[in-house]
Amino acid sequence: MDLIDILKTKKIGDEVRVEGWIRNHRRQKEFGFIDFYDGTSFETLQIVYDKTNANFDEIQKMLVGCAIIVDGKLVESSGNQEYELKASNVLLVGECDETYPIQPKRHTQEFLRSVAHLRPRTRLFQAVFKIRNLAAYAIHEYFQSHNYVYVHTPLFTTSDCEGENQMFKVTTLDLENINKNEDGKVDYKADLFGKPTFITGTGQLHGEAYAMAFKKIYTFGPTFRTENSNTKTHANEFWMIEPEIAFCDLDGLMDIEEEMLKSIVSYVLKNGEEEIKFLNNFVDKNLKEKLEKLVNSNFVRITHHEAVDLLKKADIKWEFTPDYESDIAKEHEKYITEYYNAPVFITNWPKDIKAWYMKENSDGKTVAAVDLEVPGAGELMGGSQREEDYEKLVKRAENLGVDTELIDWFMDLRKYGSCYHSGFGMGFERLIIYLTGVENIRDVIPFPRTPGNCEY
Amino acid sequence: MDLIDILKTKKIGDEVRVEGWIRNHRRQKEFGFIDFYDGTSFETLQIVYDKTNANFDEIQKMLVGCAIIVDGKLVESSGNQEYELKASNVLLVGECDETYPIQPKRHTQEFLRSVAHLRPRTRLFQAVFKIRNLAAYAIHEYFQSHNYVYVHTPLFTTSDCEGENQMFKVTTLDLENINKNEDGKVDYKADLFGKPTFITGTGQLHGEAYAMAFKKIYTFGPTFRTENSNTKTHANEFWMIEPEIAFCDLDGLMDIEEEMLKSIVSYVLKNGEEEIKFLNNFVDKNLKEKLEKLVNSNFVRITHHEAVDLLKKADIKWEFTPDYESDIAKEHEKYITEYYNAPVFITNWPKDIKAWYMKENSDGKTVAAVDLEVPGAGELMGGSQREEDYEKLVKRAENLGVDTELIDWFMDLRKYGSCYHSGFGMGFERLIIYLTGVENIRDVIPFPRTPGNCEY
Repeated sequence: MDLIDILKTKKIGDEVRVEGWIRNHRRQKEFGFIDFYDGTSFETLQIVYDKTNANFDEIQKMLVGCAIIVDGKLVESSGNQEYELKASNVLLVGECDETYPIQPKRHTQEFLRSVAHLRPRTRLFQAVFKIRNLAAYAIHEYFQSHNYVYVHTPLFTTSDCEGENQMFKVTTLDLENINKNEDGKVDYKADLFGKPTFITGTGQLHGEAYAMAFKKIYTFGPTFRTENSNTKTHANEFWMIEPEIAFCDLDGLMDIEEEMLKSIVSYVLKNGEEEIKFLNNFVDKNLKEKLEKLVNSNFVRITHHEAVDLLKKADIKWEFTPDYESDIAKEHEKYITEYYNAPVFITNWPKDIKAWYMKENSDGKTVAAVDLEVPGAGELMGGSQREEDYEKLVKRAENLGVDTELIDWFMDLRKYGSCYHSGFGMGFERLIIYLTGVENIRDVIPFPRTPGNCEY
Repeated sequence: MDLIDILKTKKIGDEVRVEGWIRNHRRQKEFGFIDFYDGTSFETLQIVYDKTNANFDEIQKMLVGCAIIVDGKLVESSGNQEYELKASNVLLVGECDETYPIQPKRHTQEFLRSVAHLRPRTRLFQAVFKIRNLAAYAIHEYFQSHNYVYVHTPLFTTSDCEGENQMFKVTTLDLENINKNEDGKVDYKADLFGKPTFITGTGQLHGEAYAMAFKKIYTFGPTFRTENSNTKTHANEFWMIEPEIAFCDLDGLMDIEEEMLKSIVSYVLKNGEEEIKFLNNFVDKNLKEKLEKLVNSNFVRITHHEAVDLLKKADIKWEFTPDYESDIAKEHEKYITEYYNAPVFITNWPKDIKAWYMKENSDGKTVAAVDLEVPGAGELMGGSQREEDYEKLVKRAENLGVDTELIDWFMDLRKYGSCYHSGFGMGFERLIIYLTGVENIRDVIPFPRTPGNCEY
């Protein structure tokens, strides 16, 4: 029986069997205590044994990390838990010797990254990856209960309209012996898809095709970027959520983003109570308060122009001068969220710094884009209303040097029953960083891939 | 308001607004009927308008595929639905002309594959992709309610122990100008990960690391195989579910597989009633009965040896002679499931035809592997108990030519608190083929990738 079900349903006097691992072991001459976990519950169970156990001597030799099966009866606890397990039988299933790197002491996160296959056994990573699991399910639950269809958009693409330098190339050719054509170019005939093939960095275009059929869709899958940047927030393989909604304008999109985020945070607070308590104690003393506050806050909505006004008025010497034509720097994001003391939607960005598919506003200068800035997380989501007019989209693409012939099917969506529609993207790891208080993206991905690092 | 919510909560006399598309349009001189859908509901809504509509002439010109917004009142229906919408206003949002490829007639699936961006608007693909969505959520719901942790295992890997010919290579190198070392080999220093990198075809190894921490885990994500095979059941990009369970033997694994499959099918029958009804009428007259039967059946469990006995006894001239040392052919699978008239688990396979990580049985000849054969679907899941003993695993890997030094971290799992454990893989598309009755994998993937085909 899973420990979490025992803790939920069993009471003092019940006989149970548990299967799991030793997290800690305190030995006395006549008895001993095993701190037991099986990973289904963040709470552990104390196991007590003594000389009445036939294999007392053998039990005493069991080290931290051993896999065991224990039969026994739940009895009143001497500690602060409801009960402990008085063992009638402790069976060793898998040995673990002193070389085991995970010992009951504080390990640095850097060290734990070097044993990425063992670190999920620590309390910190049990908390982080359980919350990652809860957040993933909360996302599905939110969208499913709001009539969205989950769409698996493809990762492989042969249209490089994102710019091939930002995408990984995939091939079945032998890189050591690439066949060339007469003109000296790679001969792709022998490659599985017969063409240069890439891994796309977004499912948005395909998502739009499905939003034009199902009205409300979302994607949730791995995403790849070739960025050669070694920061705390960049990884080359990460997960992303990209909802796309037909008959939805920018205001409607902000409503959805706000409702969705509150729904995820509420779910995690409710279902990850023990994990959040632990992270609050050991990682970020503000975590629980921050999350509870978000659920009860009203998100602010300001334009990019108003945001720059605010930054210019502030009595601060900026490293990057706030500018009506430019992006907003990290220091600005921080100031704005602290000023409002709430999550802030910034809308209507200068069109030249935003993507080609965003809808131009009637001022001719800005597009209907929106970034959500969250206190303690920075930019958590980015979205926009999409240009639904065929001619305008072609013109904007031309101006920004995007070759729409490569994606004629996407342009078709503006020909056949087009409608105003909007969508956003949320980096899943950025959300997990926010939900756990853990600072480095390498610590919220089971086996992170960053430049030069693709181990395990 | 989404149509599905209107159908659930609104009644005759209520005023509503709907936003969606015209599926069909029947025009009379004095009035007209629009068959309206918005994709949230498989049921459509009949919209009635007449000369009292100010823009009557304009409405009459709206063609199939147009995006519209309609205000009106729900009134008693003349047809077989509960009500229809008497329009007070029909607003054209997005035009659609006669060149629109999706017309209200029967299109072949081959033709619809050539308009993969538009085919989700047809009834067939509305049904297929809604069921795909339901099945995906049913999988999450099953595992979440049984204490499993959803783990995002990495797709990129630098350890090619699967055999690099079966994996796609990924690179940031310029294939037209690959730098070589002095010895004439590719210089990977400039590649993002500094090493030959591949897309793995399985998350199992990483999943095992997490099962040794959380007891019960599952993966659910895209998977890639380089197979150059153009059949109805092969795609190069597909989705897969790979659960892994600690303290679970082969019998326990079969219990889980059976319970999970019944749970998914029940969820789809309950939440996709209209879609299943449609597919039953137009794709497979046996579909509903087949699915309902599965939920109520008891899965049979036989050994590979017993299966071969059965095949040998059968009065059939086999194309492939049944053999105690060999795999079971498609014709055999079919016979076995028809013989038992139920799903059949076949266990204990000859060790030489199964993977290196599977646990050897005490007979020294077979491994604790299990395939699930389902009537009308063939092999739906494949799993095994894993070899948890370090020495035995090393020996088996050596015999099968697997270099375990490349995956020393995986071998560590057998050193530190190892335990008996099992897992299986289920191809998601194979499940969707089973659930929908649609025969070709290209018709259950939004944008399929097969050899030579990576369009859209």
